[in-house]
Amino acid sequence: MKTPSNQELIKGIQSGDKRLLGKAITLVESKKAEHREQAEELLKEILPFTGKSIRVGITGVPGAGKSTFIESFGKLAIQHGKKVAVLAIDPSSSLNKGSILGDKTRMEELSKEKNAFIRPSPTSGFLGGIANATFESMLICEAAGYDFILIETVGVGQSEVLVSDITDVFLFLKIIGGGDELQGIKRGIMEMVDLIFINKVEEENRLKAKNTKVELMRALHFLPSKEKNWKVPVMLGSALNNTGLVEVYDKIEEFITLKISNHSFEETRKKQAEKRFDYWVQEYILQKTKSDKSTETFYEEHKKNASELKSNPRTEAKIFVEKLLTK
Amino acid sequence: MKTPSNQELIKGIQSGDKRLLGKAITLVESKKAEHREQAEELLKEILPFTGKSIRVGITGVPGAGKSTFIESFGKLAIQHGKKVAVLAIDPSSSLNKGSILGDKTRMEELSKEKNAFIRPSPTSGFLGGIANATFESMLICEAAGYDFILIETVGVGQSEVLVSDITDVFLFLKIIGGGDELQGIKRGIMEMVDLIFINKVEEENRLKAKNTKVELMRALHFLPSKEKNWKVPVMLGSALNNTGLVEVYDKIEEFITLKISNHSFEETRKKQAEKRFDYWVQEYILQKTKSDKSTETFYEEHKKNASELKSNPRTEAKIFVEKLLTK
Repeated sequence: MKTPSNQELIKGIQSGDKRLLGKAITLVESKKAEHREQAEELLKEILPFTGKSIRVGITGVPGAGKSTFIESFGKLAIQHGKKVAVLAIDPSSSLNKGSILGDKTRMEELSKEKNAFIRPSPTSGFLGGIANATFESMLICEAAGYDFILIETVGVGQSEVLVSDITDVFLFLKIIGGGDELQGIKRGIMEMVDLIFINKVEEENRLKAKNTKVELMRALHFLPSKEKNWKVPVMLGSALNNTGLVEVYDKIEEFITLKISNHSFEETRKKQAEKRFDYWVQEYILQKTKSDKSTETFYEEHKKNASELKSNPRTEAKIFVEKLLTK
Repeated sequence: MKTPSNQELIKGIQSGDKRLLGKAITLVESKKAEHREQAEELLKEILPFTGKSIRVGITGVPGAGKSTFIESFGKLAIQHGKKVAVLAIDPSSSLNKGSILGDKTRMEELSKEKNAFIRPSPTSGFLGGIANATFESMLICEAAGYDFILIETVGVGQSEVLVSDITDVFLFLKIIGGGDELQGIKRGIMEMVDLIFINKVEEENRLKAKNTKVELMRALHFLPSKEKNWKVPVMLGSALNNTGLVEVYDKIEEFITLKISNHSFEETRKKQAEKRFDYWVQEYILQKTKSDKSTETFYEEHKKNASELKSNPRTEAKIFVEKLLTK
């Protein structure tokens, strides 16, 4: 793929050209050195236009109805005059380079909306790298004027930590019941959520749903509160039938208003930027090491010692870093 | 906690003192600079005694019966005259610093065995760090003479990638059925497994189990084979009732023998060591940066620029790394 110039990309992003928006995202995801140069320039240029969206993380176990929720919620936001971008962090996709199943057919209606943009999850690299690519894709969507960035992830542990590292509000989609076997999944997440939506609630299972709500409220009661003066709401509804979504929308606005007023909005974003900084420090050091002939030679040499099990990887890394920083 | 000297630790490890074995693991997990020095020394000293175990990764969704399997399989291995160590990589535990539920009561029988050692999962740090700690804990268990290292993980995506980064053989515990909703979980894992065990199979569900087996075989058929000349076996049994485990044990031996004979055993371990090396290069660079007064100052300065959103984290990191490596 020939990458357009930054001038073309920025013009495209700001004029609502989704194809160029997609290309800009491909650029920031790239690991090639020349793309990194250009991406870094691009991010620098769009900086003044970023930061103005509401960044929403959405999680839930497979089957909780995340795609349907995003489709319905996205359309609701568009009805409110907002522009909606959908990104994803998918820990299971790192190996198989692209999804096997028909992910393209997901969120079909939303994808047809003029004011919606849906980007499949980045499919290469380790989870930290994927989270980072998602963060930067988000900045680009912000520069393109998107008001809501919805970031979907599978409901299990570490990917949530990463999503909460780049979002303002974290929404947990729950299905009725679940019980003990989901305990392992639930416990880490419950401490990170800002809102809970029990999905797939209809007339015939409303009572069960209410029981699940009581259980969740009880569990939440024993957890330290993540956000001061905020009681995590547990809402009921059905994304498929479009019930309960207005309440979610309102609660998100209420939550963001609270966070802005007590400055935790700003604080959270500052801390997130620091994490991104540390990520890139490590990335650039490895990149520079490998691109510089003299350092590359002794990098390879020590790596070989480690790989031939002559020495511990930790020991070899230590010797290498000492050489690198005192050369 | 006062850390014993390396001399004491090594003596303890080699004489079968589980308390000192535990302390050695705590040492390699530590992030304190002085502990890192000592840990690196310890790993250097035990190097000649490492590498001789069979490293088994075990995964499956919550409820697949991983603990019961490990308990039964561990006891079987001990009956074969082996020593068994159990470690865990748990992505959901990174936030809550220790498990809420009674993890201590898991594998109760196995934990009483003289030739078994069970270590709860490390509970701090990001997933890459946890995987690394598990790798080094494994080396220490090997120096203590353990023949099997069983590494348990929750069955979802990225943590499997990390477990397969440090093990020789990867076993997937499956429950009967599962269906589409587990698709998201399954698809990444299926490409990484070497053996599949359908657990909880009894007389009354044997037919269903056989159907699941057929489905799995079909799915495997369409995937590229991970190991040359190896057809991933799908076995049936019940860890609780001790059925089917001997077959698993034999298949693991068969698989390892094959890997050794075609040199992929050695190759895999080499590549794994290279990944560990890269991990530690990044760790040591950050550590050195923060511990050196002169570099720390400009590290903080650029981090602040990023956090105050005056600039992109990526841009600031780039400037910092350039200064760091040319100073």
